[in-house]
Amino acid sequence: MEIKVLKDILGANEQIAERNRQLLDSNKVFAVNLMSSPGAGKTSLILETIRKLKGKTKIGVVEGDISSTLDAETIGKEGVPVIQINTGGECHLDANMLSSALNNLPLQDIGLLLIENVGNLICPAEFALGEHKKVLVSSIPEGDDKPFKYPLMFHKADVVLINKIDLLPYLRFDTEAYSEAIKRINEKVEIFPISCATGQGIEQWVSWLLSQMSRRYGGR
Amino acid sequence: MEIKVLKDILGANEQIAERNRQLLDSNKVFAVNLMSSPGAGKTSLILETIRKLKGKTKIGVVEGDISSTLDAETIGKEGVPVIQINTGGECHLDANMLSSALNNLPLQDIGLLLIENVGNLICPAEFALGEHKKVLVSSIPEGDDKPFKYPLMFHKADVVLINKIDLLPYLRFDTEAYSEAIKRINEKVEIFPISCATGQGIEQWVSWLLSQMSRRYGGR
Repeated sequence: MEIKVLKDILGANEQIAERNRQLLDSNKVFAVNLMSSPGAGKTSLILETIRKLKGKTKIGVVEGDISSTLDAETIGKEGVPVIQINTGGECHLDANMLSSALNNLPLQDIGLLLIENVGNLICPAEFALGEHKKVLVSSIPEGDDKPFKYPLMFHKADVVLINKIDLLPYLRFDTEAYSEAIKRINEKVEIFPISCATGQGIEQWVSWLLSQMSRRYGGR
Repeated sequence: MEIKVLKDILGANEQIAERNRQLLDSNKVFAVNLMSSPGAGKTSLILETIRKLKGKTKIGVVEGDISSTLDAETIGKEGVPVIQINTGGECHLDANMLSSALNNLPLQDIGLLLIENVGNLICPAEFALGEHKKVLVSSIPEGDDKPFKYPLMFHKADVVLINKIDLLPYLRFDTEAYSEAIKRINEKVEIFPISCATGQGIEQWVSWLLSQMSRRYGGR
């Protein structure tokens, strides 16, 4: 009975997600759903990405949080359009929330939409938003056992960023074993080690983004 | 309609939680619900606590995970009774799950029950298990903005442990501002800075545990 309700919710969500994707495509907006544990570095990644892509593409941001507007305020200082979604307790964004956000963004002026999901390795994995790619921001201090403990999230990701690699000297973390564990769950995933603190690896991440955008919509 | 269902679930959960607490009290088992983001250090804390309390009290452990038994295997090596609960996708433990675990633990031989909830700063805050105290394990690399972003979790915690303080030299983290932010949300909370890597602060944490146990059940 309860499972049936959940199926209906997910079914309705998929339909709205598909409509969101059509709206994004008709405006040639490439959308990325950023997911992670709390504090893995989604907001820092968005800031680095905005700075690196200045002059190359126009960026819009959707910030998902339970209640605060902290991250949206930080992002807003970069001069890009940003919409805050407060989920009011829900542990993930859903397609309907993104739909409201899209209605309030200047889509015709945006080439890349970065969507920061609620910080959580569980619930966001189940809800499509209409994004083109799912990106999981993992981080060294969380430990290298996470693919075993949150397999669905690693399975669904198109890209896994391994953030905070500047902390590798101070922590036990086997990057090679970690990458192998992810590949066993998801053999098509792309993995980029990065540090938003030092900028290491950001170039590769941004090149991947641009190549995906150009593959989908041609040069822009 | 859906909100009503959620209310019923929470109501039923509260009743089972109360029965769990009665069962624990009749066996003089003090139970602590450990909650955190993924990778903040709950399992390491349990290991340090077991080692520090060897000979002082007998410990039992309940491990909550979505699907793996990794942490239970690690804990089992310490020679304490451990029950794994696999939630099968649910982002939190509930009272019914704990009830099943209690039925499989030698409660008469245990003085302290450490319950490791699913790694997540959102859902576990809403579900009482029947525990005596809620302990939030936060960690320096997650950043000092977390009380603003996950206020319910910080509001409900009896204790906040600030773990990984050995990483303070390498990260921007204002411990004083962080503690003040927590106190504004929850003025009665106890805060202990610790490092499971170096052992710093573990003595204070364990003393707090022993004093709480003796306050509830007398010397044991």
